[in-house]
Parts: sequence; structure tokens; C-alpha cells
Amino acid sequence: MKFGGSSVADADKIRAAAARALAHRKAGRQVVMVVSAMGDTTDHLIDLARQISADPPKREMDQLLATGEQVTISLMAMALEAMGQRAISFTAGQIGMITDDVHTKARIHSIDVRRIHQQLDAGKIVIVAGFQGVTADGDLTTLGRGGSNVTLVAVAAALKAAECENYTDVDGIYTADPRIVPNARKIDRISYEEMLELASLGANVLHNRAVEFAKKYNVPIHVRSSLNTNKGTLIVAETESMERIVVSGAALKEKLFRVSLRKVPDRPGVAARIFHQLATGNIVVDDIIQTIDSDGTASVSFTVDTGDVTDTRRVVEGLCRKLSCQAVYQENLAKVSVVGVGMRVHTGVAERMFAALAQAGINIQNITTSEIKISCLIDRAQGREALRVVHDAFELGAKPSDRKAPAPARKTPRRQ
Amino acid sequence: MKFGGSSVADADKIRAAAARALAHRKAGRQVVMVVSAMGDTTDHLIDLARQISADPPKREMDQLLATGEQVTISLMAMALEAMGQRAISFTAGQIGMITDDVHTKARIHSIDVRRIHQQLDAGKIVIVAGFQGVTADGDLTTLGRGGSNVTLVAVAAALKAAECENYTDVDGIYTADPRIVPNARKIDRISYEEMLELASLGANVLHNRAVEFAKKYNVPIHVRSSLNTNKGTLIVAETESMERIVVSGAALKEKLFRVSLRKVPDRPGVAARIFHQLATGNIVVDDIIQTIDSDGTASVSFTVDTGDVTDTRRVVEGLCRKLSCQAVYQENLAKVSVVGVGMRVHTGVAERMFAALAQAGINIQNITTSEIKISCLIDRAQGREALRVVHDAFELGAKPSDRKAPAPARKTPRRQ
Repeated sequence: MKFGGSSVADADKIRAAAARALAHRKAGRQVVMVVSAMGDTTDHLIDLARQISADPPKREMDQLLATGEQVTISLMAMALEAMGQRAISFTAGQIGMITDDVHTKARIHSIDVRRIHQQLDAGKIVIVAGFQGVTADGDLTTLGRGGSNVTLVAVAAALKAAECENYTDVDGIYTADPRIVPNARKIDRISYEEMLELASLGANVLHNRAVEFAKKYNVPIHVRSSLNTNKGTLIVAETESMERIVVSGAALKEKLFRVSLRKVPDRPGVAARIFHQLATGNIVVDDIIQTIDSDGTASVSFTVDTGDVTDTRRVVEGLCRKLSCQAVYQENLAKVSVVGVGMRVHTGVAERMFAALAQAGINIQNITTSEIKISCLIDRAQGREALRVVHDAFELGAKPSDRKAPAPARKTPRRQ
Repeated sequence: MKFGGSSVADADKIRAAAARALAHRKAGRQVVMVVSAMGDTTDHLIDLARQISADPPKREMDQLLATGEQVTISLMAMALEAMGQRAISFTAGQIGMITDDVHTKARIHSIDVRRIHQQLDAGKIVIVAGFQGVTADGDLTTLGRGGSNVTLVAVAAALKAAECENYTDVDGIYTADPRIVPNARKIDRISYEEMLELASLGANVLHNRAVEFAKKYNVPIHVRSSLNTNKGTLIVAETESMERIVVSGAALKEKLFRVSLRKVPDRPGVAARIFHQLATGNIVVDDIIQTIDSDGTASVSFTVDTGDVTDTRRVVEGLCRKLSCQAVYQENLAKVSVVGVGMRVHTGVAERMFAALAQAGINIQNITTSEIKISCLIDRAQGREALRVVHDAFELGAKPSDRKAPAPARKTPRRQ
């Protein structure tokens, strides 16, 4: 069971989370909880760091941020003990949650579950600090945005858990962000693949690394609200019936920053060099477009999250000096996308999306697609409007069974 | 260099502490900093725990409290890096600061200084989290009140440091607490033995375990203010000249709680059993008095810090059932004491103290002495008055050289 920051924001919420865990325990199950930092603790810590340094060393940032979850785990153990349930809290170091040493964005290598099993077998509820890990040298790391969900799935996979519940402040995964799209609907079941696309496209509920982990180890995740006992959304392996739904959800990524490199020498290996440098700087690159200009040089564009602007500019400026190219930055972009495994077997999805955007007067700056998604890069100011337009175009606010019949299936055989 | 909570209470104070460390580093010294939790962080964390549980498990309390120092170490490293000085922070676990598993009052067993030396030799300033340790199993422990000073001395001893500076919000050790005794004077030099007595008698500046450690490894501690560059108080091994001063300081312990066990069977082993049980409960017992009553049973009294009341009552009630004795509790007591290695060679010290208290109408409930201190247990309401009276009786507000000549030396030879 994982409880996010808003679900453990104060003493009462911690007690409520503890009570949910206790109910499972009393039903005879062994329970491991993964918890995030309380409420806005992480933001408060980041603010403290900024008061000290504009560009704090990442190792020290991790050392600082890891305290947030450590506070919650100990308080959660206290809450359970106060209810008469034996409990024990563990930091990442205490259960050998070993990661690489890429501070602020570390990846989990291994978990030593012996100590967890020991304590579960002794009848205790075990509480694990989300978001954090340790390097083989014992330095603290953090797993990046949504890292507690990664911890949840990694622990569930390592323990071969029967169930994996992700408690949050929303009722589940929606067809679009309900804060932007008022008639968005909760999705009952969604495949890992769709969730992966939605997560990487800006749906904030689950981090894509968490879903990748879940898919790899086939851990079904139940995303549900900590405020009620409603069923939420089950994220599971794809089933055939899922393909009947053309589009499962729409997503908006609002904080995109585009870098265009112009006058790039058009010779083999240059693109590789550019993206190698960016990867070395641990910058996650979104869409990439390369074109050849009339003067025979290449233009290479890519988008990154605005959070990576500082790192990106540093890398790009180094590249421009070495390659004698010019960089142009465009900050105010957004990306609207639709996702659905049904796209594999239905036609006309792209046309329907482009037509809806055009009718709303929204200009598409570029298009990227995968087997199960279509994305359009647009002006940030029109992002929210675009999400509502696309959501309506596919009738995502209606029950899947009430939506208009999809276009006829392709003649080509379905891929297996 | 150790900086207490008030010396790292906000970003500016952290920068000021960093600047002091940097000055040492620039003078060519290797510097290790030990830091406490910022300002009232620890109180805030304790308050959080109390919102969750009236009696939280001590292991979880340690897991919680250790976060306070972890925040400070990372911010201090950031502050130094922002000044262009390479720095690295270490939690107790990261430098193998192994303790026993007596949570909330752990004792240090060993420190693995290799990682510290490595980083110092690489030119970095090393910042160590005070107050905390880890068990051999990796569970976090804390070292009890004043634990960061214990960390300071333990690290200094392990590194065979040339100097050991304890920065705090006062100018040094005073002849009495200046908040209670307005004419209290700063002491220039004091012996470990005197400091030990003063610390265990209620002088809050340094914890007695820190001084014991310093004495054992002969680490001179310079207690000084983080707000100015004045010389503070040097705590050093005793020298002969120190004996010229009859009394070095006076102290008041205000929060004492006395337990009197009545009708205790007067047979061998009973007292041992009582204090074994208290020790097992990790209760620090202050003065002990045993008397035989007219009915042939014994009365055993002892004082404890009021912080240990809950634990003490639990142990005492168990004992009363087993030994069929009765417990009487008296809460409102204080202890006023004078300390000085000069007592060994001067007479009339006790008489002077008792006369001064009698003249002020302060009743002495009982007296305990050691070779270099005299203590009187009195009513708590008269505690502060008693401290002022005793401080004046020994002219502690005047320079040692201006005080009245001490009574003639004893005829007996001085002990070596």
C-alpha cells in the first residue's frame, strides 16, 4: 500500500492511512506500506536549499530530500503502534534498496527483502520510505519525480505481492485531468502500455518508471483514493477486450521547452554526439525532429521538460561551440495527446484529432505518433483548450459503451 | 568545529558557520564540522510524534529525530559549495558511527574514520551529523541530550584533531547560569573534572558524556560563541594552578523528582535489585539515600530527572508489587551545588555554603558531596534564589584573583 504526500499530510491523515493498513492486517494479510513525504515537506526542503544555493550539489540535495520520507515512516510506525499493531519503519538503506549513483534521478538495482520478510513473519506491518535509495557506498539517492510509486512497485515486485494499492488524492486514472476537463471520467481498467504513454505525456498520477516496473514484473496496480473506499483504476496487462475502446485517455504536457540547433554539420554521428551529451547530462529528451535545410546543413530540434532548462542550456552551449551551430530556444509549448490500444485496430483516429483542433483554431506545430498514441505540439496558451477539444472529439466523457461506433477495422490482420 | 542548533537556526546562520569553517580551511587546516538540528526542529519533530502517540516506540523516535541533523549537514555542504569550497556531508551511518542499541540514549562504540580522511585529503570540508549513530544492524540511534557534543568529541578523538571548537549561543562556561545569576562571570579555563560535575549538576552547555570522552582522550574543548570572535572557555586537563581557586562554579538542577520507597525488606541484595531494575529501564538515577527505620525496614530514596517520570513510575510500581513496599513521590525539588578542584586543598567550603543558605532561610533537604563538589537538595521554589546566594557567598562574580583569601590549606598531604 502506498500513500502519497497528500494522504499523509498531517497526524489525522497518517492515522487514517494506518487504519487502512490495519484493516488489511486484521483480514489476515501481510502488509507493507510505502509512504511519501508529508504534504509540502519536499517543497519546503527545496525552498530551504534555494535559500542557501542557486545550484546545490545533487548529492547534498538527495541527502536533504530523503529526510522527508524518513519523517513519515517513523510517524506511521508510531501511529500503528498506538493502535496496538506492531510496526517497524525502514529507510532505503535499512532494506538495502541499492540504486545507481545518478543523484536526483537514481534507478533501483536491487532490494534485499530479507529484513522485510523477517518483520512481516514476526507479525509486524512494515513501512518503507518511498522516493529514496542508497548507492553501494551508502550515499543517499532519490528516484526523481513520482519516485515513491517506483518504490511501491519495486517492493511489490521484490516481495511478489498479491496486491499493490496506490492511495492518492484522486479516485483513479481519468480520461483527462479533471481539473482541466470537467467531464473527464474515471477509467476502470487500463493497460500498462496505455498508462506508460499517458504518464510520459503528462498524466501526473503515476510515474512511467513505476509503470515500466509494474509491466516488467506483471504487478497489477490499483490506483485509488485515500479519502473513500471506492474502487479506483486497475492498471493491468493488456486484454483483448481493451481494443474495443479506440481512445482510452487524453493528456496534456504543459511545461515544454524546445531547443532548435541550426547549421548543424550534416554528417554521420553528429546527432548521436548531441544526444549522447544530453544523456550524459541526465537530461530526458522528449520528441526529436531532424530536417535538412536548403544550405545543406541540418536542423535538429528536441523538447525537454522546463525543469531541465539550466542543465540543457549548459550542454547545448558546449555543443554549439564544438559543432559551430546555433541554438534557438522556444519556451512556451505544450503537447496534447490521445492514447489507446484500440488505435491498433481502428482507423481515422489521427484525422479526427487534427480536424477537432483545426476547428477550434489551434495550430499544430508538429505531430509525433506511436502505435498507441498521437501527439501534437501546440502553443502553451492553447494547451488546456486543446485538451478539452480532443477529449470531446473522442467522447471520452461518456461511458465507453455509449460512445459512437468506431470506424471500421483495418483490413490488415491484427498484430498478435 | 561543532555548531549547535541556535548557531544553524536559519540560512544566514548556516552561511555564517560555513564562513568560519572556510576561514580555518583557508588558513591551511583540515576541517570537520559537526552540526545539530536547526533551531527548534527537534522540538517540532517531538511535537509531531506526540500528536500521533503518547508513548512512541524509541526506535521510531530515533528514526524521526535523526532527520533534523541530516537536514543541517546537507544545507551546510551546499553553503560551502556555494562559497566555492568543496564539501561533503555524512550521516552517522555513512561514517560508520556505530553505537549500542539503547535508543534515545545510545553510546558510541566506534567510528570508521577512513571516509572522513579520504575526503579531507581530497581538500573537502567534511560535515558530520551530530546527535546520531547507527547500530550494527543499521538502525538509527540518537545519543541523548547534548548528543551533538558527544559526536564532536568522539570525532575529534577518532581523528586525533589538533583543536576542537564548540560553537554555541553563549560566550563560554559561566560561574553560574547568567539567566539566573546576573553577575555570573565567564570562566577562562576549567578542568574536565569540574566540567563533568557542573554538567551532571545541570550546567546545560556541555553534556557530561562529551566531557568524559574529552577527558579520556585528552581532547581540549574550546567552548565559544558563534556570534563573535571572543575567546571562550577552554576545558582542559587539570593543572596545579587551578587548585588556587576554591570554587570554580555553581549550578542548579531544577527538574528533580524524588522517589522514596518505604517498608523495603532490609536484607542483602534488595537495593541492588531496585537499581538493577531502574538501570534496565535506562533510567539515570541521581543521588541515592538509604536509611533503616525504627520498625527494621529500610527506606530507599533516589532522585531522577522529571523527563524520566513515566519510565520510573512504571519500574517502581513493578518493584513495589514484588517487594511489598510503598512508593512516595515528591516532584518539586531542585539541587544547588558548588564545584571546584580547590576544595581538595581548602577547608570550610561546606560550612560557608550551608551558612549562606541558612541565612537566606532556605531549608536543606539533604546533602551529598564528592571530592570536588557539594550539593544541597532544596525546594524547587527556592532553587534560583539558592543559586544566587551560593554564587555570592563564594564571590564568583569577582575575578578569581580579587576574591577573599581562601581558608588555610588542610594539614593532610594533597592527594596526587
